[in-house]
Amino acid sequence: MIVKQGIAVSPGVAIGQALALGAEEFRIPRRFVRVDAVDTEIERLHTALDNVCKEIARNEELATDRLGQQYGAIFGAHLQMVRDPKLLSEIEELIRKRHFSPEFASSQVLHRYAKELQSLGNKYLAERAADIFDLERSVLRHLLGERREELSQLMTPVIVLAHNLTPSETAALDKKNVLGFATEIGGHTSHTAILAGALEIPAVVGVGQFLADVSGGDMVIIDGDHGEIIIDPDEDCLERYRHTEERSKSVAERLLLLGPQVSETRDGVRIKVMGNIEFPEEAEACKARGADGVGLYRTEFLYLGTNEERTEDDHYQAYRKVIETIGDAPVVIRTLDLGADKVPGSMRQMFSTGDNPELGLRSIRVSLHDQTLFKTQLRAVLRAAVDGDVRIMFPLVSSLIELRQAKMILRDVKEDLEEQGIPFARNTPVGIMVEVPAVALLAEDFAREVDFFSIGTNDLIQYTLAADRSDPVVSKYYNSADPSIIRIVRMVVAAASSRGISVTVCGQMSSDPKFIPLLVGLGLRHLSVTPQAIPEIKEIIRHLTIPQAEEIASRAQQLELARDVETFLRGELNKICPELVK
Amino acid sequence: MIVKQGIAVSPGVAIGQALALGAEEFRIPRRFVRVDAVDTEIERLHTALDNVCKEIARNEELATDRLGQQYGAIFGAHLQMVRDPKLLSEIEELIRKRHFSPEFASSQVLHRYAKELQSLGNKYLAERAADIFDLERSVLRHLLGERREELSQLMTPVIVLAHNLTPSETAALDKKNVLGFATEIGGHTSHTAILAGALEIPAVVGVGQFLADVSGGDMVIIDGDHGEIIIDPDEDCLERYRHTEERSKSVAERLLLLGPQVSETRDGVRIKVMGNIEFPEEAEACKARGADGVGLYRTEFLYLGTNEERTEDDHYQAYRKVIETIGDAPVVIRTLDLGADKVPGSMRQMFSTGDNPELGLRSIRVSLHDQTLFKTQLRAVLRAAVDGDVRIMFPLVSSLIELRQAKMILRDVKEDLEEQGIPFARNTPVGIMVEVPAVALLAEDFAREVDFFSIGTNDLIQYTLAADRSDPVVSKYYNSADPSIIRIVRMVVAAASSRGISVTVCGQMSSDPKFIPLLVGLGLRHLSVTPQAIPEIKEIIRHLTIPQAEEIASRAQQLELARDVETFLRGELNKICPELVK
Repeated sequence: MIVKQGIAVSPGVAIGQALALGAEEFRIPRRFVRVDAVDTEIERLHTALDNVCKEIARNEELATDRLGQQYGAIFGAHLQMVRDPKLLSEIEELIRKRHFSPEFASSQVLHRYAKELQSLGNKYLAERAADIFDLERSVLRHLLGERREELSQLMTPVIVLAHNLTPSETAALDKKNVLGFATEIGGHTSHTAILAGALEIPAVVGVGQFLADVSGGDMVIIDGDHGEIIIDPDEDCLERYRHTEERSKSVAERLLLLGPQVSETRDGVRIKVMGNIEFPEEAEACKARGADGVGLYRTEFLYLGTNEERTEDDHYQAYRKVIETIGDAPVVIRTLDLGADKVPGSMRQMFSTGDNPELGLRSIRVSLHDQTLFKTQLRAVLRAAVDGDVRIMFPLVSSLIELRQAKMILRDVKEDLEEQGIPFARNTPVGIMVEVPAVALLAEDFAREVDFFSIGTNDLIQYTLAADRSDPVVSKYYNSADPSIIRIVRMVVAAASSRGISVTVCGQMSSDPKFIPLLVGLGLRHLSVTPQAIPEIKEIIRHLTIPQAEEIASRAQQLELARDVETFLRGELNKICPELVK
Repeated sequence: MIVKQGIAVSPGVAIGQALALGAEEFRIPRRFVRVDAVDTEIERLHTALDNVCKEIARNEELATDRLGQQYGAIFGAHLQMVRDPKLLSEIEELIRKRHFSPEFASSQVLHRYAKELQSLGNKYLAERAADIFDLERSVLRHLLGERREELSQLMTPVIVLAHNLTPSETAALDKKNVLGFATEIGGHTSHTAILAGALEIPAVVGVGQFLADVSGGDMVIIDGDHGEIIIDPDEDCLERYRHTEERSKSVAERLLLLGPQVSETRDGVRIKVMGNIEFPEEAEACKARGADGVGLYRTEFLYLGTNEERTEDDHYQAYRKVIETIGDAPVVIRTLDLGADKVPGSMRQMFSTGDNPELGLRSIRVSLHDQTLFKTQLRAVLRAAVDGDVRIMFPLVSSLIELRQAKMILRDVKEDLEEQGIPFARNTPVGIMVEVPAVALLAEDFAREVDFFSIGTNDLIQYTLAADRSDPVVSKYYNSADPSIIRIVRMVVAAASSRGISVTVCGQMSSDPKFIPLLVGLGLRHLSVTPQAIPEIKEIIRHLTIPQAEEIASRAQQLELARDVETFLRGELNKICPELVK
């Protein structure tokens, strides 16, 4: 039995036989083309590239159909690459002048592009290199007439293990026959991870080398909740996971039926449970699970996987779509949180400095730096807000002066709309994410100048404990159960309540069942969680009383070590809802 | 007049005429060597490499003589590179098999090495690529018989402006004729920056492109205090800086004479002012300026600029040297703070992951990860402590469990020394750097388990405000005067005082005159500062009373914005010691 730790990117447990994908290797005919065959060879190249374009277009259609337009856009970017005239002319030149075969010439040119991307020292860009390697493989497949075993044509259910899955491979996965997958490389923000979450296939990425330890047909467990893969599990382990899997399936089915129930504690206190969404299509998932609105609508999806500029109307349509689905409930739109691991192609220049992108130019800092983009977004939000309960939220604010700047720009935008006679919602509430320790420390001052707080635990924990949450080497230093985190959440709740503004927790901490009694006990009455988690979070709340939650919070605060807090909270959840302990 | 902002790496103001160094360009004879000349050409290569080795050895001697052995070690690493048999055989092969000229072959091979380093996506390693380019230039110079204008043979005083200065160029700078320098690239931690500080030449690095805006002979001001360079200043600006320059010179001279005076407030409260040092030689500078000991002895210098392993005796000798110089006063030895921007060659493998090294595997995390190295260092500290008032300090602690682990290893080391009958100081006090927000939040718990705190403001500010201090793009977000920083320092001081342990501030904040009244007013009675700043810090303290400082601290805490705090503190310092306002 071998246990490997990776990064959990899509929750759930999958148990099954391994399908280990080796690196795809093509035998590439090396140079040289006979002089009189050059034109024929170039024609062959054109045909292959045309076919690649068609295939990508089909993938785009497939992803758009199955997942929505935003996912399809990933392939639009690929299409642009293949159609780049510079690429074609570089490959042709190698064929004409150096008499390389089309296979060898394409491989050379695309490899060079990919290496250039990788050498820029930015993980996001390096991940994009995988897209180019993906492209290279497509081109070679069409030139050589070989076809990879199609993952989409599997006949029996398997667990897919690979060094990496390209976005096109991931989008083509058939949920019926792919129980889960794990890859050696990749991070939280790779397109592959985003797609896995949307397909709801349990997945773990960034595991590091493990393919050497596994053979096709081995029994494998993917634990997408804890980011673990277990190769060749022993009977005990297998039994335990089978039990977990079955139990969570039956629990999930039962909970989904309870969707419309109100999330209220046993003693009648209403706790609002909202959804965190990335793509407009996910608003449906929130609604189906009985969410009290969208507590965090991330808007970066508009810029990822594309090099296109986005118009005010693109923003407006995306916001309208969610508002229409959600109806009267609140929709909290977070302004762009670009930078760090989320860098759109068109802005790479701006983000090229800095060794520590998480501590660099990102999020609201980018919006204040490029006000045109920011204003476009604010205009769209204010216009969309006419038809719903929309709120604006600024991410990564770190000082009052920054908040005041952002609010001043918002005022400017309102004046412009006013002058232009365009309808907009004048009184759209404005809040901030509390995710920089400085803001938590000065929460009372900030509470005077905003309508609401939303605690973004992911970033708050990473800064408070100085541990990059996507760096597996220091993952043990990133701990939601650390006593300092409880302390800082308590400070923020106290400040919000003393100033009478609402406070939500919207980081991953609020999607983890064991933290719910603690958060309610600390005084939180609003939670925003991943859509899949909504039913179980509501279920826990319906089993709680406020005094009970307060007692749990008070006892948790007396513990000195994160691991003791974790054990204690898991034990308490076990008393309240044993079936939901993970 | 053009003003450019860079990174201040060596304080002071310099005014003078520009010497702009262009990139050194050699005309390299391309291939091909005649077949019968191959042996002669290879002999020529050997002679050139031998001469390069001799020149590096002279540089090593020069740096060792003028600055001490640790600086010389930088060149030891270069020497290892030139003597690498793999390098030689690769160059020879290109000459023999492909008939390249020795110039072209060396340039090819060394360029490839440098590019490989640069492609690893780590700023520290990328900076090391500059060392290889340096080497390439030396080799070419010896092969081609050309010689660069020797910076060390300048006849008139100038301000040196360059894209980059190599460590060997920096070490050869003659302080008499180089008033200051500025470079387009480079960071806080480049060897060039370290050397500039040790030579006490005002310097600004990482300015970005500015060489296009300047011609040789232009008047230039280097403001090493604020990290600015001013090209072609107008009369007003020049006058202002001339005034500053003269005033600070005369103040510095006067203050140095006051060295032996005790640092005591006007109402008789003793405030200990200690020195932060990097190299053992700097202990002398502390002593000459009347330091109350060494409050922060960084020990990374042992591992930087070298690929060698360090023995317990290397550590022991380095510690003994400082203890002997400092005498009875305290010497606080910080255990290795490697990682992030400080990665020794021999450990590059360990540090190769992670996109945000400041939030990654660094500092105490490395020591707990590689306990052999940690134990070697602890043994040396405990042994050296027999003869002085030595204290051990763990950096970047983020949780109690980590602290307990470190203390457990210390206990193991003591047991080993005990068993081996080796003399050591059993009761060496143990403290931690408070530089992770979590520790400040839980300071009372930590205070129960250590003998002292030392607040490392550099890291504490960067995590609290989520701003990388060496990233010029976000430098405005990194602000020592932020109200959250005052709040967090106050929390730590309160916790230390409630538990009766001592607390020092040892980050750059305590070397900045305007913060001294605030820090004393917040209750600090120990400061550790850069050796050059000791006289002025003492001078300020001797002008203060405690009630006055407390009043300043209390008023500063009522301000909402960092810029207001800064203006207020500057104004207060102006009332107390007008000559020290910068």
